[in-house]
Amino acid sequence: MGMAAAAADVFIPACAAVGIAFALWQWFLVSKVKVSAYAAAPSSNGHHHGGPVFRMEDDEQEAVGMGGDHHRDEEEEEEGAGDGTIAVARCAEIQSAISVGANSFLFTQYKYLAAFTAVFAVVIFLFLGSVHRFSTDSRPCQYTTARACKPALANAAFSSIAFLLGAATSVVSGYLGMRVATYANARTTLEARRGVGAAFATAFRSGAVMGFLLSSLGLLVLYATIKAFGLYYGDDWEGLYESVTGYGLGGSSMALFGRVGGGIYTKAADVGADLVGKVERNIPEDDPRNPAVIADNVGDNVGDIAGMGSDLFGSYAESTCAALFVASISSFGADHDFAAVAYPLLISAVGLLVCLVTTLFATDLFKVKTVRGVAPALKLQLIISTVLMTVAALIVTFAALPGSFTLFDFGEVKQVKNWHLFFCVAIGLWAGLAIGFTTEYFTSNAYSPVRDVADSCKTGAATNVIFGLALGYKSVIVPVFAIAVSIYVGFTLASIYGIAIAALGMLSTVATGLAIDAYGPISDNAGGIAEMAGMSRRIRQRTDALDAAGNTTAAIGKGFAIGSAALVSLALFGAFVSRAGVADVNVLNPKVFVGLLVGAMLPYWFSAMTMKSVGSAALKMVEEVRRQFVAIPGLMEGRAAPDYARCVRISTDASLREMMPPGALVLLAPLVAGTFFGVRTLAGLLAGALVSGVQIAISASNSGGAWDNAKKYIEAGASDHAKSLGPKGSDAHKAAVIGDTIGDPLKDTSGPSLNILIKLMAVESLVFAPFFAAHGGLIFK
Amino acid sequence: MGMAAAAADVFIPACAAVGIAFALWQWFLVSKVKVSAYAAAPSSNGHHHGGPVFRMEDDEQEAVGMGGDHHRDEEEEEEGAGDGTIAVARCAEIQSAISVGANSFLFTQYKYLAAFTAVFAVVIFLFLGSVHRFSTDSRPCQYTTARACKPALANAAFSSIAFLLGAATSVVSGYLGMRVATYANARTTLEARRGVGAAFATAFRSGAVMGFLLSSLGLLVLYATIKAFGLYYGDDWEGLYESVTGYGLGGSSMALFGRVGGGIYTKAADVGADLVGKVERNIPEDDPRNPAVIADNVGDNVGDIAGMGSDLFGSYAESTCAALFVASISSFGADHDFAAVAYPLLISAVGLLVCLVTTLFATDLFKVKTVRGVAPALKLQLIISTVLMTVAALIVTFAALPGSFTLFDFGEVKQVKNWHLFFCVAIGLWAGLAIGFTTEYFTSNAYSPVRDVADSCKTGAATNVIFGLALGYKSVIVPVFAIAVSIYVGFTLASIYGIAIAALGMLSTVATGLAIDAYGPISDNAGGIAEMAGMSRRIRQRTDALDAAGNTTAAIGKGFAIGSAALVSLALFGAFVSRAGVADVNVLNPKVFVGLLVGAMLPYWFSAMTMKSVGSAALKMVEEVRRQFVAIPGLMEGRAAPDYARCVRISTDASLREMMPPGALVLLAPLVAGTFFGVRTLAGLLAGALVSGVQIAISASNSGGAWDNAKKYIEAGASDHAKSLGPKGSDAHKAAVIGDTIGDPLKDTSGPSLNILIKLMAVESLVFAPFFAAHGGLIFK
Repeated sequence: MGMAAAAADVFIPACAAVGIAFALWQWFLVSKVKVSAYAAAPSSNGHHHGGPVFRMEDDEQEAVGMGGDHHRDEEEEEEGAGDGTIAVARCAEIQSAISVGANSFLFTQYKYLAAFTAVFAVVIFLFLGSVHRFSTDSRPCQYTTARACKPALANAAFSSIAFLLGAATSVVSGYLGMRVATYANARTTLEARRGVGAAFATAFRSGAVMGFLLSSLGLLVLYATIKAFGLYYGDDWEGLYESVTGYGLGGSSMALFGRVGGGIYTKAADVGADLVGKVERNIPEDDPRNPAVIADNVGDNVGDIAGMGSDLFGSYAESTCAALFVASISSFGADHDFAAVAYPLLISAVGLLVCLVTTLFATDLFKVKTVRGVAPALKLQLIISTVLMTVAALIVTFAALPGSFTLFDFGEVKQVKNWHLFFCVAIGLWAGLAIGFTTEYFTSNAYSPVRDVADSCKTGAATNVIFGLALGYKSVIVPVFAIAVSIYVGFTLASIYGIAIAALGMLSTVATGLAIDAYGPISDNAGGIAEMAGMSRRIRQRTDALDAAGNTTAAIGKGFAIGSAALVSLALFGAFVSRAGVADVNVLNPKVFVGLLVGAMLPYWFSAMTMKSVGSAALKMVEEVRRQFVAIPGLMEGRAAPDYARCVRISTDASLREMMPPGALVLLAPLVAGTFFGVRTLAGLLAGALVSGVQIAISASNSGGAWDNAKKYIEAGASDHAKSLGPKGSDAHKAAVIGDTIGDPLKDTSGPSLNILIKLMAVESLVFAPFFAAHGGLIFK
Repeated sequence: MGMAAAAADVFIPACAAVGIAFALWQWFLVSKVKVSAYAAAPSSNGHHHGGPVFRMEDDEQEAVGMGGDHHRDEEEEEEGAGDGTIAVARCAEIQSAISVGANSFLFTQYKYLAAFTAVFAVVIFLFLGSVHRFSTDSRPCQYTTARACKPALANAAFSSIAFLLGAATSVVSGYLGMRVATYANARTTLEARRGVGAAFATAFRSGAVMGFLLSSLGLLVLYATIKAFGLYYGDDWEGLYESVTGYGLGGSSMALFGRVGGGIYTKAADVGADLVGKVERNIPEDDPRNPAVIADNVGDNVGDIAGMGSDLFGSYAESTCAALFVASISSFGADHDFAAVAYPLLISAVGLLVCLVTTLFATDLFKVKTVRGVAPALKLQLIISTVLMTVAALIVTFAALPGSFTLFDFGEVKQVKNWHLFFCVAIGLWAGLAIGFTTEYFTSNAYSPVRDVADSCKTGAATNVIFGLALGYKSVIVPVFAIAVSIYVGFTLASIYGIAIAALGMLSTVATGLAIDAYGPISDNAGGIAEMAGMSRRIRQRTDALDAAGNTTAAIGKGFAIGSAALVSLALFGAFVSRAGVADVNVLNPKVFVGLLVGAMLPYWFSAMTMKSVGSAALKMVEEVRRQFVAIPGLMEGRAAPDYARCVRISTDASLREMMPPGALVLLAPLVAGTFFGVRTLAGLLAGALVSGVQIAISASNSGGAWDNAKKYIEAGASDHAKSLGPKGSDAHKAAVIGDTIGDPLKDTSGPSLNILIKLMAVESLVFAPFFAAHGGLIFK
């Protein structure tokens, strides 16, 4: 077994290195598209003030140039007009403005988060340190009681460190994703001049940069953390992997604020821009005359890119931590079989190689040539990665695991065979695919659900909303059954470890998932830049086609995120229950049932907060945009520039202020429940939040995606049916715009944040479990 | 104890008789308002065709008269004009049309339900009969094993009979409620000529007729059933009360179809009427020119009145059955202490007396004199009934119960004191009040939440919807905590019996609850009749004020319904678990967790169906209404009558067709889960549906109520703020109307039906528990 462990020690970092190298190579390919001397290299000076977004404000001449020739006839074909050097310069300018805005927001946000992280690391240390009253004596291990384990104080310290590392990795992941995306958006626009295929390749490659950087980095840091902590822990694998769970908590708490803060930012700007621009002033989306347009485009990068990157990184980190923890208290840990314990890391490592091959299918082997080819190419990515990963998982399973072993099963011991674990990986993988396809069916305007929603716009916004809500509710059915089957198979074959492994299976192709997910906002931005730079209608049509496919992939990405979050949370829940020493979580116990009921309520409370935040911030944005249209003479005629910076500031302030209460709710709920009501109520709370949150998250994402694409369906007018509802500005289209606006906070703020709610509450409970077990339940003792 | 039992045998039927007498007296008082010779007596010939609604269609002269003088200036004060004899005749005509439409719908619906009921009674008999292979031998009792109990075949037969009785009582309750309401609506309109106080008294008295008839009837039939079954069962109380649970199942399954069918009916008509009339044609609500106006008013009576009556009757029957069942397998049953077993019935009986006194406060002691007095008078009803009932419960508890006794606690035995049960009643009562007040806060336009929603209409429909959804989500918090506290207290003091008793406590004032709840649709209809009859603006203002208070009381009624449904379901859940012999419902068991996850999904699936049904039916209605405005010359000018009957038919057909799939989902889910996946998965399913359904039900009802009242707030223009948003027809008002329309299916179809979903699944599981325990779990054995 020593050789297998050595092989694992080579294979894991090697795969991570390959992933990073591949990401850099893709970045290099993207960088060959020249935007301008100014923006060709990823600049890092964006976080101080005085960038182009402010220059635009001061430099009237430039701004007039930007908006001046904008009043082109919708019917006029301006083949190539305005797509030359001036357009390139404009694209560079706008890209820079977006990049500066995103940088500035993220740095401000990170300042707040740094303060929070420091405080919370101390809280972790104090709570966990208090378990054995800050004693420095070693004690008998909890599971392998014959051995001596390190003191609780050491676990407290290392948990805090792991927490800080997880938080740092998450922040770096989000930041890098944003850099890549803001680097790629204008390049995609410019490549659209050469055709839809070139633009697709640029956007998709940039998504891949983000996907591979994040997943490789996550794997590498986690691996390094384990090795480094191992220097101190030596024989004490229980303590080692217990401390490592702090990594997941760190990753997820940053993700929470990233998703919520970014989500509020982007939707306040988007809703505000649309309500005045599209509805009142009847100007197109992303029109440079709209003062909120830069904020809107910044939002895509800080919300959909940075937030989503942190979210999936968190899922990945947590499911790995949960699996490692359960493995460490099973026979793998007792036998000190590192190759077996590292099985979750090996699965992720091989997943990087699989995704690498998969990416080549989209960028090199089968190039996209037409607009119609975009959606199938993205769908093919899902299928290829799933098929290849199934084979790869089979190989890894037989190579790394002993033929038979025992797993911890809530105080009992379960005999498991290695092929059982292969089935756990496979069921997770294929359940992910099923969720992805269901999501596509319900949110793509190629199928009847979205078309029915579009059709209901004929009778106005009310029926559109009713149909869209019903669609979202209905779209929950298949994913929930897919998750349920995964849980049943995983649990039956390998207890809670099986769930963690199924979650990892679903996330093993995360690099591809992230690539196609990040592709969406990049295309969205590319379209925005084309519009703002005044490029021709052809270009805009191409970027619109990319964007429409991106809406669906964004929904698919959210489907994966929530599906994996459900499995991850359950795995964490199981690990928490094991660690807290709870024998059963019996619903017939009133403490558990009360927790279950209140837990099921928390996603509603959380959604109420986030939606209200978006609504209030959007109202402020609307007032500001209206004010500028009135106060700035010549703005509507394109003779004067709007004050973009004020809108950016409104979004920034709102998001930073409003992310606190929902963040506090999620972080405090487990602490309050565990400390005052004890581990059983907390267990009920987690289960309730999980089963309830999954439903709202899926339905919110899909309702929002469907409304967005129903609107796009009417706008594109690609069929007789669609034409009968359009064109832009028709009553049906206005109704569709209202639905789209309502969907914005659902699909980009409250829905995706709920993934993190359920994961974060579970991982927090796991980290604090020793404290709750020792001192919890002050009221319900 | 023999004397106590005899006293109970006198007291229970006596209270029921008093309740019925009181209802008849109130009815007599209402009947003193003369509508016309034709409609003065409650006619019973409404269910054949050829009533006035069809006459109107044929008799152009009459119809022209109805709509002809309708174009009065909104500003003009027509003191008493048109409110004389002609108006009375018109009111009679319209009342008759509504009554005929409602009758006709209910009788058609009852034909379908009769077929369903007959089939389902056979299903119950076959499933339960198969438990011991249709053997006619007696067998040892399950709990008091020393005794001999009647054969399972007898339980099968008596369960079927109880089911039929419950179904019949539910149908009669719904029907009577509808008769009373359609009898009272025009009388309320006419009394509005005398002032708001007189109109209020008529509407409220009519509500009381319904409240007292239903609750007295429910108590009486249940009591008689127990006595009659007892003739056969003799000593076998286990079998007796096991069979009686069929009564709850019968009541609830009728309620399901009543709520869903009625909900689809009323909202298809309402949404259809509003979308064309208010939004497109800019004519007022309830304008007689609108072809869907009669269907809309019929809908109020078949949906809000008949459906809600069946719903609360179902809750009442189920909580009583659950409590009786648990009592029968506790020391009460073992000791054959009838007074103690009948404690739930005694609480309900004394509740009738309390509600009687409470009603007098509203109708006689403190008469409402002004518009401002309406809402406080209704609120006072809640407070008075709660306070009086607390005292009454204390007396009953000490009179009926032994000082100390034992209760069944999932295989164990729990020592309980009589005052423990008093606390269970009290916590249910006061939790109900807390839920009522919270609901009022979130749905009345006297408070800031609804005003914020109204304010958000300034920026259009999208922000209105976002704010309204957020409001609904937020409104869940307090009710869930109130329910959680009730559960914890009830469970801790008296195990599952405590929950059932807490539910009964919440429902003990059901007569008052129903009275203030039925008051709403009656006032709504009264307003509609005033508008259609062309009465003066003053009259309409008075009925509008009554109606606005009615929206809030309707929301409060829904709050009570869902709160009690949660407690009832949990009690039934506990009874099911006991009867199925399940020792624990451990979330860590994958069978349970999978059930929990899928169960939490069912309310979404169900809502998707019902909302889509309303949407589709509304689209058909919109087309028909639009068609009539085009096809019937002179309709818009009031020179021709619309074809009301076609709209009535569209609603009827849609509701009967569309109530099937959601009904099948609810009825089949427990049967499939129990038969194929076993009792643990079923237990998980019930718990999941309960904790998830509660949230959606509350948030849907409150979002809808808030949107409705935000619209009314703008329309009424009673403050400077409200005036700044209005008047009718302003952009903000249009946005408010869209919100109101979206809220319609949420608050009147899917939301309130969810109560029944969670109760019905639980009571069905309880009735079929012996079958599942014996033969269930074909797949997960």
